Amino acid sequence: MTYRAPIADMLLSLNHGAGFLAAVEAGHYNDYDAGFTAAVIEQASRFAGDVLDPLNRIGDQAGVKFSDGHVTCAPGWPDAYARWREDGWNAVSAPEDFGGQGLPLAVHAVCNEIWSAANVAFGLCPLLTSGAIEAVAAHGSDDLKKLFLPKLVSGEWTGTMQLTEPQAGSDVGALRTRAEKQADGSYRLHGSKIFITYGEQDLTPNIVHLVLARLPDAPAGTKGITLFLVPKFLVNADGSLGARNDIFASGIEHKLGMHASPTCTMSIGDKEGAVGYLIGEENNGMACMFTMMNQARLNVGIEGVGVADRAFQRALDYAQERRQGRAVGRKGDGSDPIIMHPDVKRNLMLMRGMTAAARSICYATAVAIDISHRAGDEKIRAKAHARAALLTPLAKAFSTDIANEVAAIGAQVHGGMGFIEEAGAAQYIRDARILTIYEGTNGIQAIDLVMRKLGADKGAAMNELLEELSAIAAKVEASNDPAFGSTGAILREVVNAAGRTGKWLLEKIGTAPNDALAGATPYLRLLSAATGGCLIASEALAARGDEMFQNDVARYIALARFFAENIAVQASSLERSVIDGADAINHADIVLAH
Amino acid sequence: MTYRAPIADMLLSLNHGAGFLAAVEAGHYNDYDAGFTAAVIEQASRFAGDVLDPLNRIGDQAGVKFSDGHVTCAPGWPDAYARWREDGWNAVSAPEDFGGQGLPLAVHAVCNEIWSAANVAFGLCPLLTSGAIEAVAAHGSDDLKKLFLPKLVSGEWTGTMQLTEPQAGSDVGALRTRAEKQADGSYRLHGSKIFITYGEQDLTPNIVHLVLARLPDAPAGTKGITLFLVPKFLVNADGSLGARNDIFASGIEHKLGMHASPTCTMSIGDKEGAVGYLIGEENNGMACMFTMMNQARLNVGIEGVGVADRAFQRALDYAQERRQGRAVGRKGDGSDPIIMHPDVKRNLMLMRGMTAAARSICYATAVAIDISHRAGDEKIRAKAHARAALLTPLAKAFSTDIANEVAAIGAQVHGGMGFIEEAGAAQYIRDARILTIYEGTNGIQAIDLVMRKLGADKGAAMNELLEELSAIAAKVEASNDPAFGSTGAILREVVNAAGRTGKWLLEKIGTAPNDALAGATPYLRLLSAATGGCLIASEALAARGDEMFQNDVARYIALARFFAENIAVQASSLERSVIDGADAINHADIVLAH
Repeated sequence: MTYRAPIADMLLSLNHGAGFLAAVEAGHYNDYDAGFTAAVIEQASRFAGDVLDPLNRIGDQAGVKFSDGHVTCAPGWPDAYARWREDGWNAVSAPEDFGGQGLPLAVHAVCNEIWSAANVAFGLCPLLTSGAIEAVAAHGSDDLKKLFLPKLVSGEWTGTMQLTEPQAGSDVGALRTRAEKQADGSYRLHGSKIFITYGEQDLTPNIVHLVLARLPDAPAGTKGITLFLVPKFLVNADGSLGARNDIFASGIEHKLGMHASPTCTMSIGDKEGAVGYLIGEENNGMACMFTMMNQARLNVGIEGVGVADRAFQRALDYAQERRQGRAVGRKGDGSDPIIMHPDVKRNLMLMRGMTAAARSICYATAVAIDISHRAGDEKIRAKAHARAALLTPLAKAFSTDIANEVAAIGAQVHGGMGFIEEAGAAQYIRDARILTIYEGTNGIQAIDLVMRKLGADKGAAMNELLEELSAIAAKVEASNDPAFGSTGAILREVVNAAGRTGKWLLEKIGTAPNDALAGATPYLRLLSAATGGCLIASEALAARGDEMFQNDVARYIALARFFAENIAVQASSLERSVIDGADAINHADIVLAH
Repeated sequence: MTYRAPIADMLLSLNHGAGFLAAVEAGHYNDYDAGFTAAVIEQASRFAGDVLDPLNRIGDQAGVKFSDGHVTCAPGWPDAYARWREDGWNAVSAPEDFGGQGLPLAVHAVCNEIWSAANVAFGLCPLLTSGAIEAVAAHGSDDLKKLFLPKLVSGEWTGTMQLTEPQAGSDVGALRTRAEKQADGSYRLHGSKIFITYGEQDLTPNIVHLVLARLPDAPAGTKGITLFLVPKFLVNADGSLGARNDIFASGIEHKLGMHASPTCTMSIGDKEGAVGYLIGEENNGMACMFTMMNQARLNVGIEGVGVADRAFQRALDYAQERRQGRAVGRKGDGSDPIIMHPDVKRNLMLMRGMTAAARSICYATAVAIDISHRAGDEKIRAKAHARAALLTPLAKAFSTDIANEVAAIGAQVHGGMGFIEEAGAAQYIRDARILTIYEGTNGIQAIDLVMRKLGADKGAAMNELLEELSAIAAKVEASNDPAFGSTGAILREVVNAAGRTGKWLLEKIGTAPNDALAGATPYLRLLSAATGGCLIASEALAARGDEMFQNDVARYIALARFFAENIAVQASSLERSVIDGADAINHADIVLAH
């Protein structure tokens, strides 16, 4: 079965759950015509179905080859990338000044979900390029922008992000790659990096590496890190390629999944030193990274939504076709499609519900990032920035956690075929596994949420979110629509639980930080269930008032109800895990030391 | 790091949580000396560490090769199997009459955990042989027993179980392989089977296939199924091998995991028909299968415990070695082992706690099966049989669900290395995935629990289990030991929730069966959390009174407490999913039909 984007679901989520329509109406997107979104999604869906989806399993099977510093991507990859560039997909939300289309990030987020659903190993490459574009656009000198941005925006060159070293993973501040300033103002870099996604490839004639390194006598830790642009080939003033720079892939990893995405070990400056150009200021590399962080983390969350949706589509398809046993009340010989069995329905609804909630959290994050960049009013921008910062760990961690859960359920729905690679369900399990790890592990997201975001600005953004969610719960209750079942009451409980738990954590940060840290992961899940559950319920309510969704109201209500009654109800247990469970974790040494 | 069995944990779980000591003292094991168990476990641990563990990754990487009907196992496999046989591991619990050691199944279960932990793809082969031994011993004619059992018991030959056909997976009754009686009393079989584990191998000179087939004019469905013994090579009266029988592997599957275990498609009787011998009575094959079912399902649960424990060991090892960042309160340069970070502790404790709970449920099931076979008093046997039947779906489904969760957390603890195959954590994710599927999917286990086990004999076994668990919760509360935290109160709540939910389900079976079916999976999880939580709490209590565990009391209490406060607390949410969530599932068609 070919991938097709769930266009109606995406539009409802974006326009209503994520507040995109309201933002357009508020003027944050200038003259953007919200009606245009559907056309973009349709085109993206077609490209994904025609070009990327057919390569997904080919890429998984063939993987990438490494020989003598060169990487050969899977068969069909170079052609697909060329079509991708030609069709303009690389430039969707990139700045118009450098050849981009300047579309909302929120619309780009929908596209990213589509690429990830069809072929997450392919879609990862332009995500890295997006990050490089963002960093250079925000912090690069005019010369660097002029020389590199047009080619990155068009996709003629790709970008990489080089942070990780063997001893510096989550702890970026421990990195050792060093950079020394040269007489001409450029730098020479020496060191090595690991886990560099698309650090080498045969898709484009040049690669623009963004590398974190340390200057001589730089302060220890994250305060002594500087960001450099290190091209694979140096670039002449006229844009033509010059000498090969001293940065090489020295190997690729043999990974559980994402086989078609080369994960490279990089040797930097083994000979004369790799020429690098300063981005931002010296020793200010972490600030440059933070610029990109919300968007990069959101993008990983979006990958999770895409993989989850694709796993769902495949499982749904299988459950509609596969016949085993008789459903209750069905008579006679023969067997029924397994989708008629309630336990299979539960599995499919879990997949569908978790994916929908994650999607809305991600799209809401994208809209917040957009407003933080685009709003005319500085206060609105600042508020949106705080909202984006708060939602980002949810978008990243919840979406990727559920991606793994959804992929696992998808295999389960397939029965024995779920374990057979050719059926395709197993690949999502393998591919999704990295999403909870890279761009900050989900544990780090949870810690970021609790230690930095929860109490930021005296909890202003958090309080506003909780008020927004409470209002949705109240609206559902006020609707008195029996089709919602207990949705309203449950959401009210869940939002209250999130509020209480957040308050408890805030108190602990000062008095017993290990207690706060111990509860971070279940709290992130709790807040995500509250946020996702309310957003999809708000979408169901909004569907009633939007002509486009008139025929779908009942199914959106049924989905919101399922999520509330079967997933969001976990909130009370999660609250107890946080509040009652911390002590047991902080007494764990006696168990784990054994 | 080499695998080592957690001997103390296993002994505590077996002797106290699972009630093995009490059963020995009650005389159900005749003159078995309970002190002997530790020696068996130590030997098994050594064999697993020395022979099986080193082959685990080799087998995963090399996989099995198929060519022209022949299967070549991974390098080292034949030698390891030969050592396995020579050291007598194949015969641990097999009947002494046919060369077995006649040890308790409960002790064999511990060994099976050890094999599964070290190398689950290897351990799977003798599990199949065990099933064949059980079937032939229980239902075979004396001639069949004499001819086949000694070689199966010694491991000179292996066994297979051949149920599945493309159209007959969960729905065994839909199978089409046909058998016709011959003048000499034997049968000729024709058909094909899929997903046959170790259906062909190069480890032994013969393979004893147990094949389900259908006689001409047999009733439709499961009532018309007959079990046959179909040897790969016919066996002469003197035990020597005769002609090659007409049953061949026609291919092997390319699977997500368990790479070293050949999963074969079998062609049966393509030429003259495969010679088969009746086991049990005609059209009574399902009854023969049911004889083996509890033990076979338990064995899969045990595989889950083994894989989970190994994933935990590896993650613990990594977390103790890997340094990243500074833990709260630690000063100065450098970084701390990640095990010092509370979020990592939570992950490790989740792994440890779920594994311990699953282990005790499995061992308790094994003890119940033992008593159901061994007790002198028929009433005690019957009661034990009902208990085993009730616990079996928990043992199978909970243990394998948590195996997947534990394996995923294990990769997460490894950070980026969790995604790299050479680190070893990823293999457990791949291997564990089949465990929730084969031998009856976990959904089917849950349905079995609700529809057959819950109300069996007016709920006698269930009521007894709940009373036993309540008594444990009461004992924990009565202990007044602050080290238990809220364990007692939580376990009381959880057991009550399990009771209420079971009662609700029982009512629904008659009035609204789809509601009961919709809640089966969360109910199984709820009952497992109650059972596992209480069992490990009872172990912590028992450790105090057993000299062997005097120095470990505090850590067993800490573990039981963690489980109660961080895992068992899910009970209230699961209860609500069952009771409040069913309606949403039975209204899911509007969502899923779209």
